Amino acid sequence: MTTQNLTLLTDFYELTMMQGYFHSKEENTPVVFDIFFRSNPSGGGYSIAAGLEQVIEYIKNLNFSYEDVDYLRSLNLFDETFLQYLSGFHFSGSIYAIPEGTVIFPREPLLKVIAPVMEAQLVETALLNIINHQSLIATKASRVVYAADGDGVMEFGLRRAQGPDAGLYGARAAMIGGCIGTSNVLAGRMFDVPVKGTHAHSWIMSFPDEYTAFKTYAKLYPSACCLLVDTYDTLKSGVPNAIRVFREMREEGIELKNYGIRLDSGDLAYLSKKARKMLDAAGFSDAFISASNDLDEYLILDLKNQGAAITSWGVGTSMITSKDCPAFGGVYKLAAIQNADGEFVPKIKLSENTEKITNPGNKTVHRIYDKETGKLLADLICFVDEVFDESKDLLLFDPVETWKKTKLKGGTYTMRELLKPVFLNGNCVYQSPTVMEIAAYCRKEKETLWDEVTRLFNPHKVYIDLSKKLYDVKKELLDQMSIQE
Amino acid sequence: MTTQNLTLLTDFYELTMMQGYFHSKEENTPVVFDIFFRSNPSGGGYSIAAGLEQVIEYIKNLNFSYEDVDYLRSLNLFDETFLQYLSGFHFSGSIYAIPEGTVIFPREPLLKVIAPVMEAQLVETALLNIINHQSLIATKASRVVYAADGDGVMEFGLRRAQGPDAGLYGARAAMIGGCIGTSNVLAGRMFDVPVKGTHAHSWIMSFPDEYTAFKTYAKLYPSACCLLVDTYDTLKSGVPNAIRVFREMREEGIELKNYGIRLDSGDLAYLSKKARKMLDAAGFSDAFISASNDLDEYLILDLKNQGAAITSWGVGTSMITSKDCPAFGGVYKLAAIQNADGEFVPKIKLSENTEKITNPGNKTVHRIYDKETGKLLADLICFVDEVFDESKDLLLFDPVETWKKTKLKGGTYTMRELLKPVFLNGNCVYQSPTVMEIAAYCRKEKETLWDEVTRLFNPHKVYIDLSKKLYDVKKELLDQMSIQE
Repeated sequence: MTTQNLTLLTDFYELTMMQGYFHSKEENTPVVFDIFFRSNPSGGGYSIAAGLEQVIEYIKNLNFSYEDVDYLRSLNLFDETFLQYLSGFHFSGSIYAIPEGTVIFPREPLLKVIAPVMEAQLVETALLNIINHQSLIATKASRVVYAADGDGVMEFGLRRAQGPDAGLYGARAAMIGGCIGTSNVLAGRMFDVPVKGTHAHSWIMSFPDEYTAFKTYAKLYPSACCLLVDTYDTLKSGVPNAIRVFREMREEGIELKNYGIRLDSGDLAYLSKKARKMLDAAGFSDAFISASNDLDEYLILDLKNQGAAITSWGVGTSMITSKDCPAFGGVYKLAAIQNADGEFVPKIKLSENTEKITNPGNKTVHRIYDKETGKLLADLICFVDEVFDESKDLLLFDPVETWKKTKLKGGTYTMRELLKPVFLNGNCVYQSPTVMEIAAYCRKEKETLWDEVTRLFNPHKVYIDLSKKLYDVKKELLDQMSIQE
Repeated sequence: MTTQNLTLLTDFYELTMMQGYFHSKEENTPVVFDIFFRSNPSGGGYSIAAGLEQVIEYIKNLNFSYEDVDYLRSLNLFDETFLQYLSGFHFSGSIYAIPEGTVIFPREPLLKVIAPVMEAQLVETALLNIINHQSLIATKASRVVYAADGDGVMEFGLRRAQGPDAGLYGARAAMIGGCIGTSNVLAGRMFDVPVKGTHAHSWIMSFPDEYTAFKTYAKLYPSACCLLVDTYDTLKSGVPNAIRVFREMREEGIELKNYGIRLDSGDLAYLSKKARKMLDAAGFSDAFISASNDLDEYLILDLKNQGAAITSWGVGTSMITSKDCPAFGGVYKLAAIQNADGEFVPKIKLSENTEKITNPGNKTVHRIYDKETGKLLADLICFVDEVFDESKDLLLFDPVETWKKTKLKGGTYTMRELLKPVFLNGNCVYQSPTVMEIAAYCRKEKETLWDEVTRLFNPHKVYIDLSKKLYDVKKELLDQMSIQE
């Protein structure tokens, strides 16, 4: 595996703007850009941050190759001085981010770039691409895992993913979201996560009969023996043949471990209950029943409600594409520009839609927990230089419904800052945990949420509020803007 | 750019099955697998084949590196003789495929692998991944281009694509489907397709005022000058400032070519009509109006119905993710197994759902055109060794609703075979056209469709029928199966 050079993985306008800045400004002014999103996918109550490790790789590898520059020259839009600048390009800015696996909410900056405007502009597209994709799939996986209610969920979507990367990094994100394994072997190798799988219908069809196919497989893999029982007829052929093979293996003194059947079609509720009875009656009550076939969180919930005897779930298309919501709406917005005195002057983008108005300035995010229960109370967006005292009362301002204020009593809450330094002046200062470490952290993160936030339908909204200072600055900027018109 | 080794980009069960075949069969029997899909995405009347060039790259580069084998060894499930076999693995089979850009329909084989079963099984997942993704986006793009009705459509989706590859190969597929350019610079470089784009809101916000931002941009790019007019107020600020800049440029004797404005928010129908009037009144009737902002084929159609004065469309999220249908359901099914006499014995997969029953045997697809109009009449799935005579009557059998038969009168139709050899015994015999050549071919392909097939809603279904011989063999196999139960 070699890392691809993704430096040109950017929107063309980033480059035309870069040349514009190169020629029209005396300085390559430092600016602040925020990545944030406006609503949780699939109507959920939270999202999961993911993709930071790939962002770091991307930033580290940023450089325009000779061929890249040559290609840009061929477009006859860029001049030689600018192309020369690109040849020597490297990222010299700073990046702060909320670590992967953290639960995140709409409107809070989950990644912040502080860099000369040309650099900050170049990296916009790739950063959004990576963060949007992986956060989307991690969030979707978390919903599916929630529905499975303690059963294992396997990621099976590679063949329906939107290209190789979508399969690969989608599997990574699904593991962060709570899956216990993936069918994707390359993901297993690259991210050191468990790979799983058994056989396809074609395996059964390539033998003279189903029994022979099962027996051959069981003898080869007695320690991971899952037989696919729906090639011909699940209850008349598949399950009886599976039971025959399990019995023969036992008689032959071969211990079956982690064995069972997989249903991949038909009425999964009915078939699983029937199959369970047949397996139990034959003395194989420890054989598991797993299911696949276009599953998602809603179907799993429904099957559980029907008492389906399934305890292991293979989820493909719906999870790897986040089918009911295939894009995470992360955006990258200018928040501040450094002035001649080295201060970051807050900038705001107006919109007819109040929700779309940005939060100005060089900001950070603090998470506030209930001191007694450890549960998440609210997130607070504020300027980086604000200092808080947990022993004092804290006043929070809703950024959209501005009449809503929340007061937290001093001594009843704890705070922690979410944005961590990742690059400082071009140097990476962050070591990514392993994917399994991130997954474990993510599990703990979700434990800080009230049940009302994690449920699939109509979840309770977590307060994402502004500090008084940020609220005041935003209000002032809005007032100025309105007058300008 | 270096090519990644995607050999491990496969489902784990392909490898467990491979080892199964390796140990349990005397021979690594040649088999036939078909890729086909069951319904057109988004309720459309056709799909577009795409991804073959990347399939070819993948097959050519198939080899297990030392690290790959080492990783598989670490899983403690594969033995040394099998791992040694993998070390020397290369693809020795044949692949036939319908060329990229061809219109395709449900149930017909669009790619066929004839190879020893271990090889055929290994490549399943990656082939499906690549073909499913690119065919999906090419098909979606074709729908968007249809709605734009002759206006140019730009692919703008990289930041919302499901990972880098989804952006890159999605842009490629979108070009095949009919887009006139992409914002994705790396796609431009890799596939030699036009890249386009202008500036973001951040460009406007980083200048003291909108006018200065516009003027700076116009002076830099007089030959591709598209000004984004909605940062502050489209009609009160954006359009007037754009007109001022256009006027000044004209007065300064700088000829503006290919210039205009972009709307990215608000009521696009209303704003575009107002902006058109303002531009016309100021003497800039040749300035274009382009639009973006969560567009898809339905919104474009609706804006056109409202008389929106937009002639250029930037389409992002909805196209690059095929938002309303984010997966192309291509499957890979065993169709035949070679017997000791070297003959391919047809195999069939049963299903409760008639639509899901596979078509057995080593097959090909012929497209049948009306001799007079050149329009597509039907596709015929048949065995590879069947010979047809265009001067004779042709009887077609509907594979699902088997009582439906169609008779074509000899001399009134022409036929061409769709599946082309791509690999023969491991050697690539196919040279992919350029993306722009494929796009031109795709345009012509769509001209062979009746209007009733290309429309967005409730399109007419194209007949995809079986030859008499294939119909008879399928019927016989089904009868045998039923008796076995």
